[in-house]
Amino acid sequence: PNDAIEYENYFSRTLLDRRSDKRTDSKWLNTKQNHPATVYILFSNLNPLVTLGGGEDGSQQPEVRLCRLCHKDVKEYMSQTEEVTLIFLGVELQLATLSGGVLKEDEEDGLVAWFALSINATFAEQFKQKHEDCYFLHPPMPALLQLTEKEAGVVAQARSLLAWHNRYQFCPTCGSATKIEEGGYKTTCLKEDCPSLQGVHNTSYPRVDPAVIMQVVHPDGNQCLLGRQKRFPPGMFTCLAGFVEPEEFSVCFMFLYIVRCKGGSLKRGRMCQRETIEDAVRREVEEESGVKIGHVQYVSCQPWPMPSSLMIGCLAVAVSTEIRVDQNEIEDARWFTREQVVDVLIKGNQRSFFVPPRQAIAYQLIKHWIGMNAHL
Amino acid sequence: PNDAIEYENYFSRTLLDRRSDKRTDSKWLNTKQNHPATVYILFSNLNPLVTLGGGEDGSQQPEVRLCRLCHKDVKEYMSQTEEVTLIFLGVELQLATLSGGVLKEDEEDGLVAWFALSINATFAEQFKQKHEDCYFLHPPMPALLQLTEKEAGVVAQARSLLAWHNRYQFCPTCGSATKIEEGGYKTTCLKEDCPSLQGVHNTSYPRVDPAVIMQVVHPDGNQCLLGRQKRFPPGMFTCLAGFVEPEEFSVCFMFLYIVRCKGGSLKRGRMCQRETIEDAVRREVEEESGVKIGHVQYVSCQPWPMPSSLMIGCLAVAVSTEIRVDQNEIEDARWFTREQVVDVLIKGNQRSFFVPPRQAIAYQLIKHWIGMNAHL
Ligand SMILES: Nc1ncnc2c1ncn2[C@@H]1O[C@H](COP(=O)(O)O)[C@@H](O)[C@H]1O
Ligand SMILES: Nc1ncnc2c1ncn2[C@@H]1O[C@H](COP(=O)(O)O)[C@@H](O)[C@H]1O
Repeated sequence: PNDAIEYENYFSRTLLDRRSDKRTDSKWLNTKQNHPATVYILFSNLNPLVTLGGGEDGSQQPEVRLCRLCHKDVKEYMSQTEEVTLIFLGVELQLATLSGGVLKEDEEDGLVAWFALSINATFAEQFKQKHEDCYFLHPPMPALLQLTEKEAGVVAQARSLLAWHNRYQFCPTCGSATKIEEGGYKTTCLKEDCPSLQGVHNTSYPRVDPAVIMQVVHPDGNQCLLGRQKRFPPGMFTCLAGFVEPEEFSVCFMFLYIVRCKGGSLKRGRMCQRETIEDAVRREVEEESGVKIGHVQYVSCQPWPMPSSLMIGCLAVAVSTEIRVDQNEIEDARWFTREQVVDVLIKGNQRSFFVPPRQAIAYQLIKHWIGMNAHL
Repeated sequence: PNDAIEYENYFSRTLLDRRSDKRTDSKWLNTKQNHPATVYILFSNLNPLVTLGGGEDGSQQPEVRLCRLCHKDVKEYMSQTEEVTLIFLGVELQLATLSGGVLKEDEEDGLVAWFALSINATFAEQFKQKHEDCYFLHPPMPALLQLTEKEAGVVAQARSLLAWHNRYQFCPTCGSATKIEEGGYKTTCLKEDCPSLQGVHNTSYPRVDPAVIMQVVHPDGNQCLLGRQKRFPPGMFTCLAGFVEPEEFSVCFMFLYIVRCKGGSLKRGRMCQRETIEDAVRREVEEESGVKIGHVQYVSCQPWPMPSSLMIGCLAVAVSTEIRVDQNEIEDARWFTREQVVDVLIKGNQRSFFVPPRQAIAYQLIKHWIGMNAHL
C-alpha cells in the first residue's frame, strides 16, 4: 500500500514518459514531428517561451505557463537545421487504472509527443513579434518557480540537454564537428575514422556529474560539522560536499566475467569492490576539514544544475574531532551542537548563523539528523 | 568502535592520499617531480609497467608488482611534453596513531609523491630494451588481478585519468586543442576567447557517469526480476540497470538561495526536490520491463570502468507484475523465485541459469535480497 502510494507520487510528479525506446526510431520521430497533436515548447538561449494564465487554482497571482505550440507554429524554423536544435522530450503520460497497474499504450498509437525546439536570437525576435502574449523567461530563475512542478520538470529536462549541446558541439576525441542524433540524446562525430566511432564511448552522451554532500556527525552524536566557502553569504554554513572522482578499481569484475563466459573456473576470488560513494565521502571530509569518517549512510539525493550534477546526500559518522581546514576549499568549518542547529532550523533563530533553505538537500540532511534519536 | 573499524578498513585499502590541494600548487609539483624519493609508475597505451616479484606472503605464485621508478629513470621522457602525459596521483599515506586521529603531515614535508607517466610506443620500446625485467601488462585484464589491492587501486586511478585524456583531447565547446593542468585533473582550452574559459564548466574535468542497478522485488516479496541482454553469455541473468539521465529540476533551490543572500523573505516555499536516483530506478525498470516500482532503497555502489561509471545499487519494490520487455534494451526478463535464486547462488546449481560472479555489484544486490527476511 505504501509502495502503491510511492508509485503514485512518482507518477503524479511527472508530465511525460521519456520513451527512450523511441529515440532511435527516426521514422516514428519524423511522423510525430509533423503530427497536429504534437506539442512543441520553444527555447531561446536556454529560456523557455511562456505566457501568463489566470491562476486556475483560484489563487490571485498570475501563473506562468509554458506555451504549448503545434507543428504549424514552428514549421518555418524546423527546416533551418543549422540554426535550431530539436529534442524529443517524451509522450504525455496517461494514467489508466493504476490499481490494475497497466498503462494504456495502444499500438495504433494515440501518443502525444513533446519536443523542445531551441531557436536562434533572430528567429526568437521574429516569433515574439507575431505572438505578443508570449515571452522568453529571462532570467529564468525567479519566474521558473511559478511554473507548475510538472512543467518545471519538463523545462529542466530540456534545458539540461540544450545546455549540453551548447557546451559539447565538437568531438572531444578529434576536435571535429558532430551531428545530433537519437532525438537529441546523442552526438556523433562527423569524421569517418574518429576513434569515438568505434565502440560505445561516453563522448556521445549527455553528462551527469555525481557529487557527494554529507552531514558529518561528531563521535558523541550531538554535534555536526558544517562549513562555509568564501563566496557564501556571510553567516551561512552548510554540509561539506565535493565531486566523486573517477576510479575504476572494479576492472577485476570484467576479468572474472570473461572467464565465466569461457567456462573457466574462478580461481582467484578476491573481493575487489570498493564503496565509491562512501570512500568519496571519507576522502572529501578528510581533505576539507581533516576530520576522519567511519560509517557512511546514504540518505537521499537531488539533481543540481551546475551544470548537471547529481548530489548524493549521506550521513557520515566522524571518528576524530580535530578540525584542520583546507583554506583552498573552504573558509571555515565548525562543530555545531544539536541545540544550536535546532535553534536555527526549527525556531528560525538566525542570529549566530544560518543554513540553506529547505529546498536544498543540505537542509534535508541536517533535518534528517535532528530528527534522529541520539543513537549514533 | 564499529566506526573506527570502518575507518581503518578504508585506510587499509588505500595506498595514496590524493592530496587534491597540491594539484594547483605547481611549485610543489615541480619540486616533487625532480625529487629523488618521488615514485613514478609508467604506462604505455593504458598498460602499467610491472615486474615479477616472489610472493612475499609465502604463496607459491609469482606476484606481479608495479615498477616503482624514480626521477632519473624517466627524466629523458619528461621533457618531451608532446609525447607523454604526466599525472599526479597523491602522496604515500602514513598512518601515525589512528586512535589519536592525527596524521603526520609535517610542514617540512617528508611527503613521498607518486606520478603516473604515460609514454608513446617508441619510448616504451626503448625503455623495455634497457630494463629487461620489466614489461607492460597487456592485456591488463587477467594479470591486473595479481597486483595487490592497493596497487590495483593506484593503477585504476591512473588508467581512468589517462583514458580520459585519450578521449578528451579537444575542447568540446570550440574544437580547439587543450592543455593539461592541475597535475592532470583539468584540461583547459587553448583558444583565448572560448566560452569554456568563462566560469567553471565540466568540460574541463574528468567524467564519471552515474548509473543505477536494481534488484527488483515482486510485490509478494518472494520473487525477483532478472533480465538478460543479447550480448550476455547464454544462461546469464542479472539485475536491470541503466544510466541516470540529466534533469535539473532543483533550479528552484538556486533562486531561493539568492533571495536569502539579499535578505529577502522566502515567500514561495515550494518543495521541489526530486529523488533522482529513485526516479531513475523507476523509469529504467518500467522502460525495460514494464514493471512499476514503489519504494526504492539504496544498498551500495561500485565503480565500473566502461569507461568510468559509478554503479549505484538499489533494492526496488514492484507494485505491478506483468512483464513487457523492451526488445531494444533487453532480450528477456523473468520473475525468479527465492528458491531458484538460492539454488544458483548458494548451492552453485547452474543448470537453469546463472548470475554474475560475486565481485559484481549485481551479485551483491541479489545476495542482499536473499539474506533479507520476507518482511517486504
Ligand atoms: N554516459 C554513457 N556512456 C555510455 N553509454 C551510454 C551513456 N549514456 C547512455 N548510454 C547508452 O547506454 C548504452 C550502453 O548501456 P549498457 O548496455 O548498459 O552498457 C549505450 O549504447 C548508450 O545508448
Ligand atoms: N565535473 C566538475 N564540474 C565542475 N567542477 C568540478 C568538476 N569536477 C571537479 N570540479 C572542481 O570543483 C570545483 C567546483 O566545486 P564547487 O565549488 O563545489 O562547485 C571546480 O572549481 C573544480 O575545481
